[in-house]
Amino acid sequence: MTNTRTLTVELGERSYPIVIGRGLLGGNFDLVGHVRGKDCLVVTNETVAPLYLEAVLEMLGNKDVDAISLPDGEEFKTVETVGRIFDKLVDNSANRDTTLIALGGGVVGDITGFAAASYMRGVDFIQVPTTLLAQVDSSVGGKTGVNHPKGKNLIGAFHQPRIVLIDTDTLNRLPDRELKAGLAEVIKHGAIVDAEFFAWLEDNIEALVTRDPEALAHAIRRSCEIKAEVVAADEREAGRRAILNFGHTFGHAIERCEGYGKWLHGEAVAAGMVMAARLGNMDSANLGRLRGLIERAGLPVAAPRIAASDMRAAMGMDKKVQAKQLRFVLLRSLGEAHVTTEYDDLLLERILGAAT
Amino acid sequence: MTNTRTLTVELGERSYPIVIGRGLLGGNFDLVGHVRGKDCLVVTNETVAPLYLEAVLEMLGNKDVDAISLPDGEEFKTVETVGRIFDKLVDNSANRDTTLIALGGGVVGDITGFAAASYMRGVDFIQVPTTLLAQVDSSVGGKTGVNHPKGKNLIGAFHQPRIVLIDTDTLNRLPDRELKAGLAEVIKHGAIVDAEFFAWLEDNIEALVTRDPEALAHAIRRSCEIKAEVVAADEREAGRRAILNFGHTFGHAIERCEGYGKWLHGEAVAAGMVMAARLGNMDSANLGRLRGLIERAGLPVAAPRIAASDMRAAMGMDKKVQAKQLRFVLLRSLGEAHVTTEYDDLLLERILGAAT
Repeated sequence: MTNTRTLTVELGERSYPIVIGRGLLGGNFDLVGHVRGKDCLVVTNETVAPLYLEAVLEMLGNKDVDAISLPDGEEFKTVETVGRIFDKLVDNSANRDTTLIALGGGVVGDITGFAAASYMRGVDFIQVPTTLLAQVDSSVGGKTGVNHPKGKNLIGAFHQPRIVLIDTDTLNRLPDRELKAGLAEVIKHGAIVDAEFFAWLEDNIEALVTRDPEALAHAIRRSCEIKAEVVAADEREAGRRAILNFGHTFGHAIERCEGYGKWLHGEAVAAGMVMAARLGNMDSANLGRLRGLIERAGLPVAAPRIAASDMRAAMGMDKKVQAKQLRFVLLRSLGEAHVTTEYDDLLLERILGAAT
Repeated sequence: MTNTRTLTVELGERSYPIVIGRGLLGGNFDLVGHVRGKDCLVVTNETVAPLYLEAVLEMLGNKDVDAISLPDGEEFKTVETVGRIFDKLVDNSANRDTTLIALGGGVVGDITGFAAASYMRGVDFIQVPTTLLAQVDSSVGGKTGVNHPKGKNLIGAFHQPRIVLIDTDTLNRLPDRELKAGLAEVIKHGAIVDAEFFAWLEDNIEALVTRDPEALAHAIRRSCEIKAEVVAADEREAGRRAILNFGHTFGHAIERCEGYGKWLHGEAVAAGMVMAARLGNMDSANLGRLRGLIERAGLPVAAPRIAASDMRAAMGMDKKVQAKQLRFVLLRSLGEAHVTTEYDDLLLERILGAAT
C-alpha cells in the first residue's frame, strides 16, 4: 500500500492523474471520487474479469454499476465489439453522465475509450490497465480506437481518461509473454528520449523479466512520465508525439501481415525498433546495445518471414504516411529520436528483404 | 454570384467560415483553397449526386478526388454506412491529410462528419449542404453522428468542419416537403432567441414557402448567425447550446416511435415545438403565434398517434436526460428559451395523451 505515486498528464482542462501503486484494486483507493455521475459500466474481458472485476465493482460501491465482458484478443478490437458496448449502454438507458471503466489490457482500453468518445458524442472514462503494455503506454495519452481489417487503429478518437489507475500487483498474474511484450514499450521510451533510462534498463533488465516489484515500479513510473511529457507537448500528434511511434511503422505492418493477435503488439514493436534503428543508420555500437537489450528482454529482434512487397503495402496504410510518403521515426543515437520522410529506400528494401 | 456573405463560427483554432451565396457550386468559388492535403473523398447520396456531384468534382480540379454515393434516407444513418466510408478510404489508402466533403442534406453531413472524426482519429471535412435543413442547422456546429436502433444520434462526435459552403440555388431543386421541414429549424431559431426574427418570419412565411430567393437568403443567414453564436458560446453543449434542442425531445421520440425516415426530422421538430411550448405553459397568444407560423409553413402541429408510454420510453433515451430525469427546453416567451428539469408531469401526460 505504501509508495503510491501520482503523476499528472498536463492538458489544461483535460489534465488527469496517473496513480501508480501496489494493492490499489480492492484496496481503499477512492475510485468513486473520480466518477462524476451515478452510472458506471465496467468493460473488461473474459481473462481479466475473474481476477479483478469483483474488486473493482466493490470499489464502486454506491454507484449504479453494470459490467460487460468481451472476448480476449486483438482480433476482437473491432467496430462490432464497440457496437456491443453501445448496445449495453442503450439497454441500460445510459446517458451523458455515464462513466466507462476499462479494466484490462491495451485492447480493452482502446475499445472502451473509443466507445466513451463516441457514445452520445463523448462520456467520461477511466483506465484501469492490468497489463504492463497498457500500464506503460496505451492507457496514457488518450489515443483510442479499433482496427479495420486492412489496418491497425484506423478508426478511433483522441479522448483522454479522467484518471489512470495502475495497480502494479496485477503484473503478478500476467503471463510471461505479455510481460515481455510490455517491456518493448518501456525500452522504446528509453530509446527515444532518455539515454539514462535506457542505461538503467540495461542494468535492470533481468530484474524486470523476473518481476522484481521495485524495478517494475520504477520502469512503469519513468515510462509514464516520459509518455505524459510527450503527450502534454503535442496531444493530437501534430508533430513531436509521433516519436512515440518508434518501431511502430514496421511493427504495425508485421501485425497486419501476420494477422492481428498472432504476434503481440509489443513483440512486433520490438522487431520494428531494430528495423527502424537499422534504417536510421545508427552506429553499430548503439544498434548492438538496442538489439542486445531487446534480446535480453526475451523479445524478437527480426520480423517473421513476410514478403517485402507485403510489408511495403501494409506500411502504406500506416497513419504516419503523409502525401503517400512513408514517414519513419529514426534514432540519431540512443535517447534521440526524430521523425523524417527521408530515408534510404535501398536500405529499406534490404531490411525488408532480410525478413523474407 | 453577387451578394455572397461570409459568417464565422468563432471557436479559436477551430474557427471556420460559413459562405452563403447563389451559384457557388460550379461557380468560381475557391473550394480547393480550403483543402489542406492532396486527397478528397466526396460523400453524397443517390438523389444529390446526379444534381451537383459533377460541379463539386470540377471545383476540386487538381486534387486527387474520389466519391461515394450512399442510399438516401435517415434509415441509412447507421454505423454500417459509416463503415462503407471507412472501407472506401482504406481502399484508397487515404491518410491523415485526406479531406471528406459532405455533399447533401443533414444525413449525409452527419454521417460524413462522424466518419471524418473517427478515421485515423480525425481528418478534415467540409460541409456542402444542399437542403434547407442542413443549411440552417445541421451543417453548422460540429455535431456529427449516426443513429442507434434505439435512439437518434446516440453515436457520434463533436467535429467541426473546415468550411460550410451554402449555395442557396440548390433549394430550387429541393422537394416541397423537405423545404418545409427545413423551415421548422428556421422557426426554432426565432422562437428560442430572437423575437424580432420570429416576427419577420410571420411577415415572410409565404415568401419562404414559395421560395423567394431574397427571403430564403435572409432566413438562412440569420439562422446561421444565431446558431454560430450559440455554438461559439458553448461548443460541447455544457449548457446554453442545449436550447437548440427546442422541440427535439418530443421530436426525436416521434421519429423513433414512427421509425426513422417516416416523419422528416423537421416535421417531428415542428410538432415537438408546439408540444414543448404547451409544456412550458406559454401564454395562449404566443402559443397561438407559434402554432400559426408552423401551420402556415405547412408543418404538423401535433404528433401522430403514438401511445404515451411509448413516447415516454423513447424520450427516456434522449441525450438531454440527466440522472434519469427528463430535461426540456421550454420557452418563457417567444425568443426566450431555457433548459429545465422542472415541468408539470400531469401536463406532460396530457400532452402525450392528446397524441394517442
